[in-house]
Amino acid sequence: MKKRYLITPGPSPVPENVRFALAQEIIHHRTGEFRAYTAQASENLKKICKTENDVLILAASGTGAMEAAVANVLGRGEKAITIEGGKFGERWTELVKAYGGVPVVLGVEWGEAPDPKDVERLLEENPDIRAVYATLCETSTATVQDIEAIGKVVRKTGALLVVDGISSVGAMDMRTDEWGVDILVVGSQKALMMPPGLAFAAVSEKAWKVMEAAERTVYYFDLVKAKKSAAKNDTPYTSAVSMVRALCEATAMIVDEGIDNVLARHSLLGEAIRAAMVALDLRLLSKAPANAVTAVVMPEQIDADQLRKVMTEKYGVSVAGGQAQLKGRIIRIAHMGYMDKFDMITAVAALEMALVEMGQKVVLGKGVAAAQEVLMRG
Amino acid sequence: MKKRYLITPGPSPVPENVRFALAQEIIHHRTGEFRAYTAQASENLKKICKTENDVLILAASGTGAMEAAVANVLGRGEKAITIEGGKFGERWTELVKAYGGVPVVLGVEWGEAPDPKDVERLLEENPDIRAVYATLCETSTATVQDIEAIGKVVRKTGALLVVDGISSVGAMDMRTDEWGVDILVVGSQKALMMPPGLAFAAVSEKAWKVMEAAERTVYYFDLVKAKKSAAKNDTPYTSAVSMVRALCEATAMIVDEGIDNVLARHSLLGEAIRAAMVALDLRLLSKAPANAVTAVVMPEQIDADQLRKVMTEKYGVSVAGGQAQLKGRIIRIAHMGYMDKFDMITAVAALEMALVEMGQKVVLGKGVAAAQEVLMRG
Repeated sequence: MKKRYLITPGPSPVPENVRFALAQEIIHHRTGEFRAYTAQASENLKKICKTENDVLILAASGTGAMEAAVANVLGRGEKAITIEGGKFGERWTELVKAYGGVPVVLGVEWGEAPDPKDVERLLEENPDIRAVYATLCETSTATVQDIEAIGKVVRKTGALLVVDGISSVGAMDMRTDEWGVDILVVGSQKALMMPPGLAFAAVSEKAWKVMEAAERTVYYFDLVKAKKSAAKNDTPYTSAVSMVRALCEATAMIVDEGIDNVLARHSLLGEAIRAAMVALDLRLLSKAPANAVTAVVMPEQIDADQLRKVMTEKYGVSVAGGQAQLKGRIIRIAHMGYMDKFDMITAVAALEMALVEMGQKVVLGKGVAAAQEVLMRG
Repeated sequence: MKKRYLITPGPSPVPENVRFALAQEIIHHRTGEFRAYTAQASENLKKICKTENDVLILAASGTGAMEAAVANVLGRGEKAITIEGGKFGERWTELVKAYGGVPVVLGVEWGEAPDPKDVERLLEENPDIRAVYATLCETSTATVQDIEAIGKVVRKTGALLVVDGISSVGAMDMRTDEWGVDILVVGSQKALMMPPGLAFAAVSEKAWKVMEAAERTVYYFDLVKAKKSAAKNDTPYTSAVSMVRALCEATAMIVDEGIDNVLARHSLLGEAIRAAMVALDLRLLSKAPANAVTAVVMPEQIDADQLRKVMTEKYGVSVAGGQAQLKGRIIRIAHMGYMDKFDMITAVAALEMALVEMGQKVVLGKGVAAAQEVLMRG
């Protein structure tokens, strides 16, 4: 017997009641019964995203919704600012290029947050920018971007602000309407406590106007068509019925706990992990650490992927590794979704034990104690 | 207490073991454990599609895979034949247009199958045709197209044969390799006994050559990128983990029963329904009826949607209605996937009872008896 602990930034654990909702007998998607699920999930998502805008449900993983936010917005040859500070920022650039757009890249050191003044400068230099593509939590570096400040800059222009909130919405504050986010993209398998396979897009009036006028090469991800169907709590193509029913269950848990309470819980868990890493003399990669996931730089002599192997194979505790240039250098400990205090204790304890196994001088329990100090406040 | 019977052409019923597979605890998608599921599902799908080609798994509904089969193949201004004999044939035309292609439409009366000679003629008249888009079972009219004969015509040319097998693969014979199908598109929620939310594409060497050379506006549905990942039993973007594990279970059931036995079962069920309709003096819409679903024309004085309402609300038995110009005129009784003899008896019995409720002169049990005669042979 070995229990397993999934402490990765998506997929993340799915509560039992959500999994049981998945297992229910199938119902038809073009029925009042199913439309009521769609309506309820959509209402719950609005509360979680703090928006009065339409929230559309797509049968795709998060990247599908990112593609929708490019394909529906950007005509060939049109310019967009993409903020690149990690793998998911780079995905915005790739998408803009794939659709024949011209990316104006705002490059940021991996682990650093973009300066909103740089966004402002690029917008001034390029008055023909159609959209700014940002990322609330750049999952690859566990770094938060100041969407509120970027929003203040973008809303003065005709450009749309598009935010990848895939790994962060439900874990970190996203005031979609207040901050002026025109398209917010979210995935199911992160803080929303669902399996992967659904993605969401919250769309502002400003964005609808742009999309309705744009010449678009898009079909499955046609958001304008999706909006028309959503007005009847329907989708243009077959809904992922079981997933949407489970989504109703998962989002209801968040709404029942209260989104701000959920965010406070994530904040506490993030703080606990960061305190534990500091106590263990481990460096945080990010200069603007997110509350959804923490990236920790391993000591030079430690191969992070080897360490993760020990954690998984010996202890059953899975954390994520680094991507691209960070491969083998960092681990990423998630604190998103269906996670509580003792998931954090487990992660820190397993990390300590694996570090000792790999010959590091670590005082067992030191990180755990630091986490406990924080967690007792919540 | 009212039991419910879903006898619709997708979503169709999902067996208990498949639903329980959906409810399992989540695992991470970038692990050997999950890659083994992907590999197994893919192997099973190959047997079901009778192909040695790669079978790719996409997190999307069937239309997403149809889009992939257009977006990856057709450059702007390039020509393709689309066979239109119903709603799903029309979708091919819409997709070709959405991607800036030029559809050469082969229109067929709804309910009739295309003549392969017409495909041959169009190919001769238009030597620059890049692809022919066909539909094994046009679900909206329950009509089968002769893919084998169309394949013989297309394989002599440089054009690709792309077939929508969304509602039919697993219910009707699809000899992908033998018939020369270059891209076969399949959906999860029809004969494969899964919830909606996954789609599959089986791709030939001839198609890979075209796609690798094509200039493509595609990202999430990039099949070339998906192929590279699939070689490692991986996907470019997050897999729909729970759905893929359930797919393993569902496709294993088909492989264990034996695909040809599964097809024979569908053939028998289809025949039983057709015999029942004839016994009830009801007309089949299709001149080339499919074994996945049967479309039945209602007597003139009967509103088919009103009849369906009686069947659903009074008896808990759901069948599908007609789409577009067939709305209110037909019902469609599915016999695909997780269905057996008594689902057919139930459908026929409920139809008889609802017809009587609506004032039709029907001898109760007459259609049932005709179905029984056929079903006893299996």
